Amino acid sequence: MPTIFSPTDFGEAKNELQKDYFDRHTPVIHCDTQVGVGELFKIKIRIGNEYTHPHEADHHISYIQLWNRETLLTETRFYPGILPSQPGNIEVEYTMIMPQVSMNLTALSYCTKHGLWRSQPVVVKAVSH
Amino acid sequence: MPTIFSPTDFGEAKNELQKDYFDRHTPVIHCDTQVGVGELFKIKIRIGNEYTHPHEADHHISYIQLWNRETLLTETRFYPGILPSQPGNIEVEYTMIMPQVSMNLTALSYCTKHGLWRSQPVVVKAVSH
Amino acid sequence: MPTIFSPTDFGEAKNELQKDYFDRHTPVIHCDTQVGVGELFKIKIRIGNEYTHPHEADHHISYIQLWNRETLLTETRFYPGILPSQPGNIEVEYTMIMPQVSMNLTALSYCTKHGLWRSQPVVVKAVSH
Amino acid sequence: MPTIFSPTDFGEAKNELQKDYFDRHTPVIHCDTQVGVGELFKIKIRIGNEYTHPHEADHHISYIQLWNRETLLTETRFYPGILPSQPGNIEVEYTMIMPQVSMNLTALSYCTKHGLWRSQPVVVKAVSH
Repeated sequence: MPTIFSPTDFGEAKNELQKDYFDRHTPVIHCDTQVGVGELFKIKIRIGNEYTHPHEADHHISYIQLWNRETLLTETRFYPGILPSQPGNIEVEYTMIMPQVSMNLTALSYCTKHGLWRSQPVVVKAVSH
Repeated sequence: MPTIFSPTDFGEAKNELQKDYFDRHTPVIHCDTQVGVGELFKIKIRIGNEYTHPHEADHHISYIQLWNRETLLTETRFYPGILPSQPGNIEVEYTMIMPQVSMNLTALSYCTKHGLWRSQPVVVKAVSH
Repeated sequence: MPTIFSPTDFGEAKNELQKDYFDRHTPVIHCDTQVGVGELFKIKIRIGNEYTHPHEADHHISYIQLWNRETLLTETRFYPGILPSQPGNIEVEYTMIMPQVSMNLTALSYCTKHGLWRSQPVVVKAVSH
Repeated sequence: MPTIFSPTDFGEAKNELQKDYFDRHTPVIHCDTQVGVGELFKIKIRIGNEYTHPHEADHHISYIQLWNRETLLTETRFYPGILPSQPGNIEVEYTMIMPQVSMNLTALSYCTKHGLWRSQPVVVKAVSH
């Protein structure tokens, strides 16, 4: 089956090239980690922190999926040509409502040249009132 | 072919029921209407303004597409069960970079029970510096 | 909103170029038009009859949707690079089970350069035993 | 990240219940394993062999992806309600053209209740003439 890459599997980046390669493929989940049950909150997913993934017809991020354990929550597809190559170009934000149980989120992103990449997991704790 | 619904085709809502039905199916594009060429800007799409679409296994908003004229820019899929029924539950925000020519945006959304709905078009004017 | 093209809207093709352009974008539904209720049957969708759509990174058929009136039944996405340019390259076949009521099928296909195209409608009559 | 299930990870099914559970979730790739370079050939993906996956609003196979190593080739989405519960209900067939190098195919399928499942890999050898 397709390998699902994560920088944490490779260990520390050995040089600038690897640092760039790892960073610009890895989705990062940004959200609060404690949310009141039934409250609205935002989940933002961004590809990379400092480096920029190309966004061209033959090489682009095709989709990002957001998973809660084994359940798919959302999927966003991007079409090449609209998002030029520059930091912050691949970013999507969802509004969710916190369920009664804590969530364990992972994002997966697919690069048409370099395959599937996964984020670090993020636990969102459900807080009762 | 599938009808693509828009409240503007039906004329004014005749009663509260129609107002609710139209509002909770129609995607609305929220973004600046003048953006500098090459600048980052946000496009938010929300279903409805005041009413709430259900989000259940047999009745939910399945996807939202964002089009620039005849070109598909993005598509987001939502899975039932994660977003309870309450205003603001269907909302997604993208970060884009303004191209050299003005855009004419339309959002389409698909409800598993009531078909395809389209937003009012939004023109985003490209401003040179 | 995005125009949804169909050769029937344009009238007869005026020359070889138009004939090619219309044919290689238009999805065609192939299936029986009378099926017994509860019976398995095949629905094949093919882009074009005689001409060939390119299948390259910056110009390809991205997806085909199959609709029954206002209800989406299936969607298949194709990724560029795997299907070279040659007749019969864009084709997908589903196995369905005939519901109790007749269906009115339409296929939509999206070309990354030339937008959304729709098939001729195909009515599949439900036959009781 | 989401676990990707395969019966081969669990070992032999211990009883009828497990046999059913494994079979009706696992995609199986059906195609020739030696194909001439540049020749058209069919790839069929079917969920299960003997058992039947439900196809209901709150429990259905949502999509099937076909991968060649780390590259996504196709993805088909199924909507609940059209394919009743009976063997052979989840099946899709693609027409492909054999590339110059052998392929190592895997199918992934997503059940809205029981997550991601992967097929056994299938190697398709490229034969020169």
